[in-house]
Amino acid sequence: SEVKKIAVLGGDGIGPEVVGEALKVLKKTEELFGYQFETEHGLFGGIAIDEKGTPLPQETLEICQKADAVLLGAVGGPKWDNNSKELRPETGLLGIRKALGLFSNIRPATVFDCLKEASTLKPEVLEGTDLIVVRELTGGIYFGEKFRREGAGGEEAVDTCVYNVQEVERIVRQAFDIAMTRGKRLASVDKANVLETSRLWREVVNRIAVEYPEVELEHVLVDNCAMQLLRRPSSFDVIVTENMFGDILSDEAAMLTGSIGMLSSASLGEGSFGLYEPVHGSAPDIAGQGISNPIATILSVALMFRLTFGYHEAAASIEKAVKDVLDAGHRTGDIAVDKSKAIGTTAMGDLIVAAM
Amino acid sequence: SEVKKIAVLGGDGIGPEVVGEALKVLKKTEELFGYQFETEHGLFGGIAIDEKGTPLPQETLEICQKADAVLLGAVGGPKWDNNSKELRPETGLLGIRKALGLFSNIRPATVFDCLKEASTLKPEVLEGTDLIVVRELTGGIYFGEKFRREGAGGEEAVDTCVYNVQEVERIVRQAFDIAMTRGKRLASVDKANVLETSRLWREVVNRIAVEYPEVELEHVLVDNCAMQLLRRPSSFDVIVTENMFGDILSDEAAMLTGSIGMLSSASLGEGSFGLYEPVHGSAPDIAGQGISNPIATILSVALMFRLTFGYHEAAASIEKAVKDVLDAGHRTGDIAVDKSKAIGTTAMGDLIVAAM
Ligand SMILES: CC(C)[C@H](C(=O)O)[C@@H](O)C(=O)O
Ligand SMILES: CC(C)[C@H](C(=O)O)[C@@H](O)C(=O)O
Repeated sequence: SEVKKIAVLGGDGIGPEVVGEALKVLKKTEELFGYQFETEHGLFGGIAIDEKGTPLPQETLEICQKADAVLLGAVGGPKWDNNSKELRPETGLLGIRKALGLFSNIRPATVFDCLKEASTLKPEVLEGTDLIVVRELTGGIYFGEKFRREGAGGEEAVDTCVYNVQEVERIVRQAFDIAMTRGKRLASVDKANVLETSRLWREVVNRIAVEYPEVELEHVLVDNCAMQLLRRPSSFDVIVTENMFGDILSDEAAMLTGSIGMLSSASLGEGSFGLYEPVHGSAPDIAGQGISNPIATILSVALMFRLTFGYHEAAASIEKAVKDVLDAGHRTGDIAVDKSKAIGTTAMGDLIVAAM
Repeated sequence: SEVKKIAVLGGDGIGPEVVGEALKVLKKTEELFGYQFETEHGLFGGIAIDEKGTPLPQETLEICQKADAVLLGAVGGPKWDNNSKELRPETGLLGIRKALGLFSNIRPATVFDCLKEASTLKPEVLEGTDLIVVRELTGGIYFGEKFRREGAGGEEAVDTCVYNVQEVERIVRQAFDIAMTRGKRLASVDKANVLETSRLWREVVNRIAVEYPEVELEHVLVDNCAMQLLRRPSSFDVIVTENMFGDILSDEAAMLTGSIGMLSSASLGEGSFGLYEPVHGSAPDIAGQGISNPIATILSVALMFRLTFGYHEAAASIEKAVKDVLDAGHRTGDIAVDKSKAIGTTAMGDLIVAAM
C-alpha cells in the first residue's frame, strides 16, 4: 500500500510519552497489516516556545501541511501560563486549527464497561451512554475580533462572536452525516432565545434537516443541554454545537463517562485530512514519571485509521487489543482502583502491542 | 413593623400556581411574626404578550420599581416560542433584569438529604455538596450589540460580548462578600486562555482578591469547571462567573443536586432590592393540573426574607417547615419515588403552612 505521512507533535508534559506508545502501536500495524507510515516530528506548544520562540513554528506547520494526518500529544503547562498571548501554547493550538482548516472537532464520549465505576454518575444512569459531540472549531467567539477600549465604566474588553451561513452549513452537514452512520438522532445545541448567531445556527440546521428526513432532530438550549447530559446521557446520539458551547459540553460529556483518560478526538476539515489527539491535557504534574496513561493517544491512532485512512480492520484490532488488556485487569494509575498494582506508561503500551 | 411591598409576577405555565402557594406562606408569616406585606400583581411573560402585546408592560415595571422585592413564578411556553424577539417571554426576563439593575444572580445548589436519591450522581460524590453560583446578569454577550450582515461566506450573524471594569468589580466583590459568610472559598470561572473579556475579568478578580486575604481563590477555566462540578462538586463553595458561563454552569450545578424542583434563586442589584424566583421553568406540560411542586417558590420567599428584608427568623421557620413536611414523607409527583402517593400543589402548600 502507499506510504502515509503522519506529522507527530508530542508537545508538552506527558504528550511525548503517550505519543511514544502510540507510535509503537503504529509500527506494529505496519508489521501486521503491511501499511507503510512515514512519521515526521515537529515542535509544538510550550517546547516550541522555548526552542523557537513561537508555539507554532513555520516548519511545524509545513510538516503538518505535507502530511496526511497529524498525531498530537498535548500542550501547555504552568511554565508558559503567564506568558503574553503570542507566547502561549494554546495560541499554537488555535493557530494550527485555523491554519489547517480544521473546522470540526469530533469527540466520542464512550463508557468503557470496565471503567464504569470510575464515573461519578450512577451506573444505571450511564448505561448505554455512547454519544459524539461535534464541535465547530474555527469560528465563533474564539476567532472574532477582540480588543480593549475605554468606556464610561472604565476600561472595557470586547470579544466578538461571528458565524456565517457557510461555516454553520459545513459543520451541521457533517453532524447529520455522522448521525446517519449511528443512531440517526441529532441534538443541535444553541442559545437561540438570546443570541443572534444561535438564531442563524438554528435556521441553517432546520434548512439542512430537510435533506436528512431519517434523522430525528431536536434543538436544545445550551443551559438545558448541560442539565440533560447529566439527567439522561444515554438519550443522546450526536450533539452538534458551536465552538464555545462545544468546548464546555464536550468536557462535561467526557467527564461523565468516567473514562476521560481513555477518550480520543479528531479535528477534521474538508477531505480526509485530520488531527488526532487525546481529550486529556498535558498533565505537567505527572510528566516524566512514566506513569501516564497512553490509551487515549493509542485510540487516537485507531480513530485516525478509521476517519483519515479507512483502515478499519487495523482500527478494530487496536481497539480490541485495548479492550483485552483492560479486561485482563491491567491499569495505569489514573484508572486503577488499587493504585499499588498500577503499571507504567511503557508497560501499558507494550501490553497493547502484544495483544494486537 | 413597616409595610413591605412585594410585586408578584405569576407569569406562565405553572408560575401562577406555585406563586399562589408561596403567597399563602407569606400570609402565614404576617400572622406568626407580625409582618405586613402589600402585594401587587403584574402581568409578565407570555400572558402579558397575550393581554398587553409586550412581555414586560410599563405598568408591570412600575409595580416592580415601587416594590421592595419581586416574587416571580416562571415565564415561557410553546405558544410564544416562534414569536419575533420582541414578543417572546424571555425578552421580558432580560428586560426586567436590565431595567431593575439586577446585575447578580445567586443560585444556591443545595442537596436536600431526603432527595439525594433523585440525583444521577453517586451519593458519596454528592455528600457535602453545598455551593452557590454567583452569575453576572446584565452584561456580556447577552446584552452586547447583535446584528446580521452580508459577508464573504453568505449572511452572517454577530453577537458582541462586552465587560467593563466596573461591571466585573461589583459582581466579584459581591461574590467575595458571600464567600466570607460561608466557606471562604471562591472559584472564579473564565476562559482567559481565549477571551479578552475573561482576561479583564481575571485581572479584576486578582486585584479585588487583595481586599479579601482570608478567601482562598482559584481561577478555573469554564471547560474545566464543567468537569470539576461533576468530579468534585462538594469541593466548591462560591463560584463567580460571567453571564453566559453562569447560565450553563448554574444549570449544571442545579441538576447535579437532584433537587432542581426545590431550588430558589435571587437576582440582586445595589441595595437590598431583589427579584426572587424558582430555578425551574414554567413547565407548560403540567400547568393547570394542580400537580406542580411549589417548594422552590416557597423557598424563594425565605430567600427574599433573608436577603432583602433581613427576616431571618421567619426565613428559618419556612425552611424548617419545608424540611419537616419532606421528612414526614410528603412529595409532589416530580420528587415522589412512588408516584401513586404524590400529593398536589395546594396540598403541599397547605402542609407547609400548617408546619410553620
Ligand atoms: C486550550 C484551549 C484553547 C482549548 C479550547 O478551548 O479549544 C481546549 O480547551 C480544547 O478544548 O481543545
Ligand atoms: C430564558 C433565558 C433567557 C434565561 C437566561 O439565559 O438567562 C434563563 O435560561 C435563565 O437562566 O434565567
